[in-house]
Amino acid sequence: MIVSILGGTGEQGPGMALRWAKAGIQVIIGSRQQSKAEQIANELNGELNEELIQGMANPEAAAAAEVVALTVPFSAHKNTIDSVKRHLKGKIFIDVCVPLDPENPRKMLMPEAGSATEEAQAILGDDVKVVAAFQNVAAHELRHLDHDIDCDVLVCGNNREARQVVIDLVKQMGLQPVDGGLAYNARVAESLTALLIGLNIRNKVKGSGIRITGL
Amino acid sequence: MIVSILGGTGEQGPGMALRWAKAGIQVIIGSRQQSKAEQIANELNGELNEELIQGMANPEAAAAAEVVALTVPFSAHKNTIDSVKRHLKGKIFIDVCVPLDPENPRKMLMPEAGSATEEAQAILGDDVKVVAAFQNVAAHELRHLDHDIDCDVLVCGNNREARQVVIDLVKQMGLQPVDGGLAYNARVAESLTALLIGLNIRNKVKGSGIRITGL
Repeated sequence: MIVSILGGTGEQGPGMALRWAKAGIQVIIGSRQQSKAEQIANELNGELNEELIQGMANPEAAAAAEVVALTVPFSAHKNTIDSVKRHLKGKIFIDVCVPLDPENPRKMLMPEAGSATEEAQAILGDDVKVVAAFQNVAAHELRHLDHDIDCDVLVCGNNREARQVVIDLVKQMGLQPVDGGLAYNARVAESLTALLIGLNIRNKVKGSGIRITGL
Repeated sequence: MIVSILGGTGEQGPGMALRWAKAGIQVIIGSRQQSKAEQIANELNGELNEELIQGMANPEAAAAAEVVALTVPFSAHKNTIDSVKRHLKGKIFIDVCVPLDPENPRKMLMPEAGSATEEAQAILGDDVKVVAAFQNVAAHELRHLDHDIDCDVLVCGNNREARQVVIDLVKQMGLQPVDGGLAYNARVAESLTALLIGLNIRNKVKGSGIRITGL
């Protein structure tokens, strides 16, 4: 399987890329600038001591992959989706974005659609299977591959088979997925991120997370 | 301290009343019908083998208490608050309500204010300290006093001292509180309930919950 991470040079991308690459998945880092994507891919390959990760401009990265993840700040959410939309037909699109208030990252803005994920699904239409995941895992925890991450990954989307593919991708990262049901539950996953950022600040910690109990 | 639980004859109320009463708190069950409140209070006192819980009509219950909790279905949220508003000045108001979609309890309706808690604060004004709590704990788990409950209680509200009072009340129930910060985070606590109901249904369990990790 080939997975692209658009905006993959940012906070969440490198950890996701390293974990998937180590699991034998072909990973492409996408960025607005191809050179930046290639640079980060090179750095990560250096850490892995193998040439497992490629760098491309976002549209080429989207075109080349079967599963496409998006990890840009919410201010770039709509524009990035528009820029790759033509390459996503029939594919699974993992939305990692959280609509945080740029002036207060402890607060979520409420997108008109309800969540970033639902907004992505509305822009992309029914041909693309949008799935929310990875919103609640701290980037630096993902980045440390030897870390046991004490945080479940809620996986929400309207297509059950696509959710299952993402659930398997979460497991391959060494994380614990929870099938969160339909796309509207992405509101919970996304707003939890703002809550966790607030908890990190108030408790002077870096990686608060969530576990679902009683399943 | 005297705590009233308005709508306390419903699902959440009896477990909350029993746990607080056992901790030595004076508890009043409120209901639209005084006779129903008295009946449930009698039943609970029977379980406790002590006369620790009183039953009253909602307005009298609100007037008699220092801390007033509300556990009605969301359809009765605004009307119940209006009916007791004049008795709440200067008090702490614990909003336990979740704006679930009556046609689909796995989905949260988005109140215009953002959450039931923010709606309550808007109705009650700055004289009342509204705090969200207890949304995510399954009623039947609360009701079984010997149960260790594997679910944190998020406590959210704009007044820090009021949050601290509720945090202490959560601990007195034998539950683990998490200071969830400002009232807008009640959106997270409330929408989590809908997610947990969906998880219960899909996983054929009764009491899924959440834990905050990494604090």
